[in-house]
Amino acid sequence: MNRLYHYPLSPFSRKVRLTLAEKRIEVELVEERYWEKDPDFLRRNPAGKVPVLKMGNRMLAESGAICEYLEELHPDPPLLPKSPESRYEARRLVAWFDDKFYSEVTSRLMGERVFRKVMGTGYPDSANVKAGARAIKEHLDYMHWLLDQRRWLAGNEMTLADFAAAAHLSCLDYVSDVDWNRSETVKDWYAKIKSRPAFRSILADQVPGFPPPAHYADLDF
Amino acid sequence: MNRLYHYPLSPFSRKVRLTLAEKRIEVELVEERYWEKDPDFLRRNPAGKVPVLKMGNRMLAESGAICEYLEELHPDPPLLPKSPESRYEARRLVAWFDDKFYSEVTSRLMGERVFRKVMGTGYPDSANVKAGARAIKEHLDYMHWLLDQRRWLAGNEMTLADFAAAAHLSCLDYVSDVDWNRSETVKDWYAKIKSRPAFRSILADQVPGFPPPAHYADLDF
Repeated sequence: MNRLYHYPLSPFSRKVRLTLAEKRIEVELVEERYWEKDPDFLRRNPAGKVPVLKMGNRMLAESGAICEYLEELHPDPPLLPKSPESRYEARRLVAWFDDKFYSEVTSRLMGERVFRKVMGTGYPDSANVKAGARAIKEHLDYMHWLLDQRRWLAGNEMTLADFAAAAHLSCLDYVSDVDWNRSETVKDWYAKIKSRPAFRSILADQVPGFPPPAHYADLDF
Repeated sequence: MNRLYHYPLSPFSRKVRLTLAEKRIEVELVEERYWEKDPDFLRRNPAGKVPVLKMGNRMLAESGAICEYLEELHPDPPLLPKSPESRYEARRLVAWFDDKFYSEVTSRLMGERVFRKVMGTGYPDSANVKAGARAIKEHLDYMHWLLDQRRWLAGNEMTLADFAAAAHLSCLDYVSDVDWNRSETVKDWYAKIKSRPAFRSILADQVPGFPPPAHYADLDF
């Protein structure tokens, strides 16, 4: 049985969970408190991060490389388009969310308000929280601009870019950090992706000490 | 004519330059002081980073997505192997260097000692420099361990992983931050990659105020 070492509020874990579920690859989820640096876990992945996917006797790390691998092994349903130009655009946006959005928004809002508490590393830095709250507005506007011209973020097909974005936004939504009133277009996109069967396990996530708000799992939010 | 907006000591720019040169795609290099946030540059790439590749009338950003695109458009010579397993390993290592190595080593050593001076953002933080100097040793040991079992970092063929690693190490070598005596195996690998024609333009780089050491461009270092 495949096994995914993950953490419920890790956007990188969520992106891989969505990809596995969309491609109907069965996997057992094992929650990993990766910051405790358990020696067994570090042996599986010297980078010390989640997600780590165990497939057969292979241990796979790095969410981007894992998703590309799953796409190559299980091309149906596709999560990357056919043409090199559209594939580029999907990959560009995956990097946009996993790199820029993560450092400007997720690491600030989740990092300060959730992970400090979970990991026991002190009080939130309010300047960081404020900067994150400011940055998410610009990112929602950028998504609005993209979705105004396209059905999905990278074009007219759903791709890994949508899963990367939804992975970050769903983590932030778990702690009510997304203002869905900012853009009807972005909200419609999220409602579409949230209602996919692949999203179910993510909407059922529960982190002790952080009960999700009522709208989190509600498809009509 | 294709055009690459880059900065000489940006490892992400160097990875794309190596890929372009290896695939013999001609490109005009335009140096971009991206931190000055020139409005023209921001219009080309809202993420405000280098490299940005202009091909025809398309503007391409995000070095990882650019390299995958170049690989799909110009598959010969290949920089990703054939099998999904080997492609995964190459992509995992690209992420290892561009993410983990960058944040633990490059951003600390180059960030504190070079970019603070170039960008005029104050004095180096010596704790950061020390942490970077410690971390590079572990990374060189990891590379030694990999290269002890394989001809190249991701397997027996040269891949994007070698270019990602060489891009970071060549930037650090420009400021004499790599101890080549730590591993004969890693030094041999670097000598091999350094002597490729694709590396020539990188060895000719000059940054005002930071003359490179004599060994930097020397193939027999």
